[in-house]
Order: sequence, then structure tokens, then C-alpha cells
Amino acid sequence: MSAPPLRVALLGCGTVGAAVARLLAERSELLADRAGRPLHLSGIVVRNLSGPRDLPAEQAGLLTDEPGALVDGADVVIELMGGIEPARELLLRAMRGGADVVTANKQLIARHGDELHAVAREHGVGLDYEAAVVAAVPVLRVVRESLAGDEITSISGIVNGSTNYVLDLVARTGVTFEEAVAKAGALGYLEADPTEDLEGIDAAAKIVILARTAWGVGVGFDDVHRTGISGLTDADFEQARGTGQVIKLIASAWRSGQARHPRVELAVRPVLLAQDHPFAQIREGGNAVVIEATSAGRVRIHGAGAGGEETASAVLGDLVALARRRPAQA
Amino acid sequence: MSAPPLRVALLGCGTVGAAVARLLAERSELLADRAGRPLHLSGIVVRNLSGPRDLPAEQAGLLTDEPGALVDGADVVIELMGGIEPARELLLRAMRGGADVVTANKQLIARHGDELHAVAREHGVGLDYEAAVVAAVPVLRVVRESLAGDEITSISGIVNGSTNYVLDLVARTGVTFEEAVAKAGALGYLEADPTEDLEGIDAAAKIVILARTAWGVGVGFDDVHRTGISGLTDADFEQARGTGQVIKLIASAWRSGQARHPRVELAVRPVLLAQDHPFAQIREGGNAVVIEATSAGRVRIHGAGAGGEETASAVLGDLVALARRRPAQA
Repeated sequence: MSAPPLRVALLGCGTVGAAVARLLAERSELLADRAGRPLHLSGIVVRNLSGPRDLPAEQAGLLTDEPGALVDGADVVIELMGGIEPARELLLRAMRGGADVVTANKQLIARHGDELHAVAREHGVGLDYEAAVVAAVPVLRVVRESLAGDEITSISGIVNGSTNYVLDLVARTGVTFEEAVAKAGALGYLEADPTEDLEGIDAAAKIVILARTAWGVGVGFDDVHRTGISGLTDADFEQARGTGQVIKLIASAWRSGQARHPRVELAVRPVLLAQDHPFAQIREGGNAVVIEATSAGRVRIHGAGAGGEETASAVLGDLVALARRRPAQA
Repeated sequence: MSAPPLRVALLGCGTVGAAVARLLAERSELLADRAGRPLHLSGIVVRNLSGPRDLPAEQAGLLTDEPGALVDGADVVIELMGGIEPARELLLRAMRGGADVVTANKQLIARHGDELHAVAREHGVGLDYEAAVVAAVPVLRVVRESLAGDEITSISGIVNGSTNYVLDLVARTGVTFEEAVAKAGALGYLEADPTEDLEGIDAAAKIVILARTAWGVGVGFDDVHRTGISGLTDADFEQARGTGQVIKLIASAWRSGQARHPRVELAVRPVLLAQDHPFAQIREGGNAVVIEATSAGRVRIHGAGAGGEETASAVLGDLVALARRRPAQA
């Protein structure tokens, strides 16, 4: 292999970051084959150097709490810190310095996607974030590339695994809604503050990103008609059961108007579905998205929407795709 | 828009070719937006100039039966003629002349994929064929790009809509196998010579292409353990029904050995599945593929595996993706 290694800087070393670091080591030869050049992890930025890390011994020396120099010397920067700042500033700095960037940060993309894309275009670098939307379900690439010659008319799906776990538990075991939320929390399906999941905020960020990708429209979080599942009562679930239906939290986006100048509606809300509806059959933390397009018809994608290793798979997919496109002499 | 138009040559004007030509006209502005430059259809090669064509009036003048000059002057050549020759020679000529190529020709890729890829690499051009494998189900791009950082361990699915139509009809309506084949033929689901579908030859070509894409291995058509559905009897269907199962024609590929030096097994055969198996629920001409990967887990994709417009969607997706990557000054 004659191409020089690609210098990869990793920002963040939580569950997903540690999985990405480990897989870069474990699959180094496979990834070099796929990318056409070695992928060299040049450093891992953490907030607190003394915290415990789930890293192979040979990577422990890569930790740093000073991102600036690392970002400036990287060919690709992977951002897995979460939050808006300093993630936003670091990605802008990376792109202005000529680096491609990969992120799994859905709130950052939902809120600052326009700014980040403008800087990526200006500097001719890549900005990819498959992992930001339903992790290992490859829906962004399908929307952006596979259906690039088609007219997407709607996108809908179960895009939050935590709430689906809760709803599925109530529907299938008959525990109360309150018990199901408690169990999901105990199993780590819900954050300590479960508001983002239960109120549909996480799902709203994902459907915003999907809509922007599908139609290139400037929709934002405030455009989403949003109802979470926290207002559901046990009576709602009993009623659903009585009519042979199930309740699912569905995020949806649909186009009206012309393909080139679309108007887009966005919603996240609990929906009653018949038992044989494809979404009704999504169990536990599973995710599923249906894309409708004028020529392709209905394309359905189903998979793991969360998890450290699953999210890392999507991050590495973006990384290899960017490495392949990057001129070897850069 | 300042970039010069991309000159697109179309080889073949059957059902898929005519749909591609029509969509290039109908969506010209949308496609130009997406590709970053206009896509200019410079000619359509047909064998017989006097045959009837389902083309818009303004495209009738683009028909020619002399492919050579058209191919030599194109930036992208789309091959939808089918068959091995002259498709193979024309694509080799196009790539040697610096053109990217898109094809939906699964037999050509299954048999001559190595040669075509070698020439594409040598000349630094793109060679894409999403439409060759289950039409509008975007499985090749998911395998090649979304899962480029992962280790795929198996791929399986219902990849032939004609046989699924027959099997579904028998399972759900109780008609005999012979009647179902006759009905599928009458509805155009089967070719005049249905051998390619019924004997699993079409499915075998698709699983070969999927395996080569997933693992980069030199497997060919003869490596597929292949049993079609023509040997099934009404007694087989009665037995399945009696045990609450359904028969589906499943194509599968699975890896053994190491990720970098895999051994790959390939099979196409009728399989008995429980009613609640995801593949058991694929109706009529539907297609579905499940990809298992070490990190991503199970990714399932479902959609239309055939049809002129559906296949054209995949062709146009490849075309736009290639146009985006092509330097504007080329």
C-alpha cells in the first residue's frame, strides 16, 4: 500500500468513541484495504484525562485534553462529544483547515447543519453524519444517494428506540406505562433525564435532519408538530388493545407542492396502528424507516437505531467513504 | 449553474431505457440541482430504428443504431441493452475513453465484473450498477458504503419477484403451482422463457454480485448451490400449509474464515419459513434483503425489486452520484 496514512482525530471517548477507537485498532488492515490507505488514529480528545477509559493499552497514550493542535493536523475529524459547543467550533475549525468531518451529533446537525454545510462547501471538504440518525440503519445515505434521481414524497418511521421499548413492553406484557418507563430506565434504554426521548425531542431532531437531506429545505426543530408519549395513560393502551391495535411513536415528514420547491410538514406523535402494519411489528429498541418516492415506490429499512458498536459501524462507514474520495496526495 | 452539462449516452430503449429517458426529461431541473450540473441526454442507441418507442417527441430525434461515436463523446454511458455483447464491448470502450458507466445488466456484472472493474480502476472512472440487483432496493450501496467499516457475515433475501409472486399466490389463494405459474406469466411477471426465474438463475446472479461486493471475493455463478422452484409439487405446498409455514425462494451468502481472507458459501433454494419470519411476509413481487454485520447487527431492506420505473430510479441514483463526484472541468 503506497498511499500515505490518513490522520484521524477522534473527539470524544464515551460509549461510541471508545467503540470507534477499538474498531480502528481491531480492523486496521481490513479498513486500510477498504479505504485504499491506512487509517491512522492520531489522537483522542477527552474532557478529563484521568477518567476511566475502555481502550486498548496501545491507545491510552493517544488521549489529550487539548483538541486544537490535533484538529489542525488531521485529515479527518470524527466528533462524538455531543452537545453544541465546543463540538461546533472544533468542526468548523477542522473544515476550515481542510479536514473532512464525521459526526454522530444529531442536535448539532439539526440546529447548525446549514452553517456546517456552507463551510464544508466553501472549503471543498466532506461532512457526513449517518450515525446521527438511527445509528446503523443506513437511511441518510439511501435518501441522499440511492434516491438522488427520484422524488421523495414522504419519510416516516420509528426513530427512537427508547420509547419503542417502552411502548412495546406495555403492548406485549401488559405492565403499566409507569412500570415500563421504570424498567427502560433501569436497563439503560432511557437517559437519567428521559425528557428527550419521552417528549419526542430526539425523534424531532432526526426527522428534521431527514427532511433537510431529502428536500434541501430549511426546516428546523420548531417546525415539528410534536407530541411525546409522556401524556399517554393506561386507558389509551387498554383501548388500543381492545381494538387489536398498538401505539407507536411515529416521526414523519411529507412533501406538498412541487418537487423543486417543496413545502414540507413535520410531525412526531403517538399513532394507533393495526397489528399487521409493518411499524406495529417493530420490537423492543428496533428502528424502522419507510421512504416513499415517485419512481422507486416504498423502500423500508429496519435495524438497530442505537448502541455504541452499532453507531460506531455507521461512523466507520462514513469514514471509509470519505477516505476513498479523498485524493491520496492531499 | 455554471458547470457544463454532463453528456449522457443511453444504450437500450426497452422498458427501463424508455423510463430513464423520460425521467431525464421530466426531472431535468431537479436532476441538475442534485448533480450540480445539467444532465444532457446526447443519444439513445437502439437495435432497430423503426421499432415503436415510448418516448417524448423531443427525444425521438436522439435515436441511433450506431453506438460508437455516441459512446466516444459521452461523459457517462448508461447501459440498459441486456445480454453480454455488445454491452460488454461498449462499456469497455466507454471506460477506456474516460467515461463513467452505469448498468442494470446483472448477467454482465456477474460474469465479467472483474474485467470491467479492472478497466474502471485503470482509467479512474466510475462503474456502478445498483439497478442490477433488486432494482429500487438500495442494497448494493448499503453493502459497499454504509457498511464499509463493518464486517458483513451474511446476506440473504428474496431477490426474485417473479418466483415470489408465484409462491405467494399458491400460499395465500390455494391455487395449484401450475395455475400460479400460468397466472404470473399472463400478468407479465415471468418471461416468455421462465427458466431464468423458476430455476433460480436470476437469483444466483444477484447473490453472486452481492457477495463480490461484500467480500471482494472472486466467486462466480458456478459457485452457487442452486435449486429453483420448478421441482416443487402441490404436496410440498400442502405440507407447508399444514405446519403453518410458507415456502420462499431464498438466496443467501455467508462468510467463514477471517474477515480479510474470507471463504464464502452461496446458495439459492426453496426454504420453509414460519409465518412470522420477516421473509414469510413478503407479498407478491416484493423483494427483501437482510444483511448481518458484526457491529451493525441486522439491517433489513425491503422494496420493489423490479419494474421499469423502479429500476430507472436506481439507474438515476447512480447517475447523479457519479455526476457529483466527477470534476466539473472534465
